Amino acid sequence: MTTPLDAALARVSADIDARFDRLLAVPDDPRADLYHAMRHAAIGGGKRLRPLLLCATADLFGVDRDCSGDVATAVEAIHVYSLIHDDLPAMDDDDLRRGKPTVHKAYDEATAILAGDCLHALAFEVLADPATHPDPFVRAELVFELARASGPGGMAGGQMMDLVAERSRFDLATVTRLQQMKTGALIGVSVEMGAILGRVAPEGRRSLRGYAHDLGLAFQIADDLLDAEGDEAVVGKALRKDAEAGKETFLSLLGVTRAREQCRMLVDQAVQHLHAYGPEADVLRAIARYVVERDR
Amino acid sequence: MTTPLDAALARVSADIDARFDRLLAVPDDPRADLYHAMRHAAIGGGKRLRPLLLCATADLFGVDRDCSGDVATAVEAIHVYSLIHDDLPAMDDDDLRRGKPTVHKAYDEATAILAGDCLHALAFEVLADPATHPDPFVRAELVFELARASGPGGMAGGQMMDLVAERSRFDLATVTRLQQMKTGALIGVSVEMGAILGRVAPEGRRSLRGYAHDLGLAFQIADDLLDAEGDEAVVGKALRKDAEAGKETFLSLLGVTRAREQCRMLVDQAVQHLHAYGPEADVLRAIARYVVERDR
Repeated sequence: MTTPLDAALARVSADIDARFDRLLAVPDDPRADLYHAMRHAAIGGGKRLRPLLLCATADLFGVDRDCSGDVATAVEAIHVYSLIHDDLPAMDDDDLRRGKPTVHKAYDEATAILAGDCLHALAFEVLADPATHPDPFVRAELVFELARASGPGGMAGGQMMDLVAERSRFDLATVTRLQQMKTGALIGVSVEMGAILGRVAPEGRRSLRGYAHDLGLAFQIADDLLDAEGDEAVVGKALRKDAEAGKETFLSLLGVTRAREQCRMLVDQAVQHLHAYGPEADVLRAIARYVVERDR
Repeated sequence: MTTPLDAALARVSADIDARFDRLLAVPDDPRADLYHAMRHAAIGGGKRLRPLLLCATADLFGVDRDCSGDVATAVEAIHVYSLIHDDLPAMDDDDLRRGKPTVHKAYDEATAILAGDCLHALAFEVLADPATHPDPFVRAELVFELARASGPGGMAGGQMMDLVAERSRFDLATVTRLQQMKTGALIGVSVEMGAILGRVAPEGRRSLRGYAHDLGLAFQIADDLLDAEGDEAVVGKALRKDAEAGKETFLSLLGVTRAREQCRMLVDQAVQHLHAYGPEADVLRAIARYVVERDR
């Protein structure tokens, strides 16, 4: 049965693929492999959770989908660049991603490093492009928030903590902070950027921020559960690497039962943050519930 | 003897160091090494040519040095991130940079990849920060130009062409295009961003663009000459790698005599582009002349 969430995900996925296809048209020169590598990582596959969060939030305020689609592509470009670099031999050393060979396996390490760097730059080029949004204040705010969420105080800082986690014993508070930075920051900024496009002032974004915060943690706990219990063929990447590396995770610290309870509670909390919104927020509610139920 | 250029370079270098010192304050948490790695690469050493170009151009229009200093720090952050990634084993595999061990040697590869990614994000965070410039139009334009100059159509695209150059035979036109992207784009955008801060409309930037274009090519030919004839101890990095890799360069295609002539001619041309400016452009003229004379 196709749920409204399935339909929303399918629509956003097709849209993001089409936008990456235009953005990454392969030039007829020595850079061709660089573009092929970016396309390999960016087009086809991926849950497109962050673009959906951004577009569904922007939809609350009647934002034009052409505009939110561009901005969602920028957020996804940051997510994809981080996956390319994270999969490198010096980092997580993964051969498989979204059911396909990782970029450094399909091409080579140097091309993977540059493909990540290029997607990183393209994200900010798209956001700052007057064709994306006519108001420079909105463009500059989008850039500022995404740069903050993906840099040393956000995603990349969380990845560094994750590297250190392999040789340290982190407690629950530190693991929570690590995960809020590593995955929570980009999930949070996706919702934030949807609200920026909707011209919601910072003080009006509080409930949406609460939603994104709880959703981000629930997502990570669900990821830990999938890592322990999931099917590699369905998930499309190598699993059970955290336990092998002796890393503390929500799962190792809480155990399966409490982790699952905690995940459900966070999802309920996330949904409660949306109480002021009517049926127009049903997609955001469905995303939260999907997080506990997904198998990939 | 201290020339006005020496004084200008020393002033900009000290200023950029101080700004990186504030931007990269080491947090007391598991990310400490990430910040130490960024500081290792960003503080102390480096010619600071791009920041000087940016500030000297902004000076033409009376831009506040506190503002141009922030923007120059962002451009230098992009330059430094590209050096960190370029030095990685999978790329140029260099052990020495600015007379110090490269970041992956002083720390490790994973930290080097993340340190580069973080400086990349920080550059755009600084540019989009309202504290850097009050006008969002200026902030968005700075982001757009820097993202374009550093992405697949600029610096990173040029690095990809450079990788391909090792297994291809490029002609002079292709080598020129490669170098215009790899080093010319960031040199060009430094001048462009100085003009943006000076509120010069795009059509009024033509002569400054001409200056930057010729300067960028002259700089690269001088770099090739230094690579062939320089002293590793003075230059502070491994030399003669292009010839060993069998890469075509300006030098291999033109020979030493014509390369040196071409470099001088480009410097003269660069200076001529500044004919409409008076003594206020003397630092820009001195930078052009310095390019042919430098020994590092």
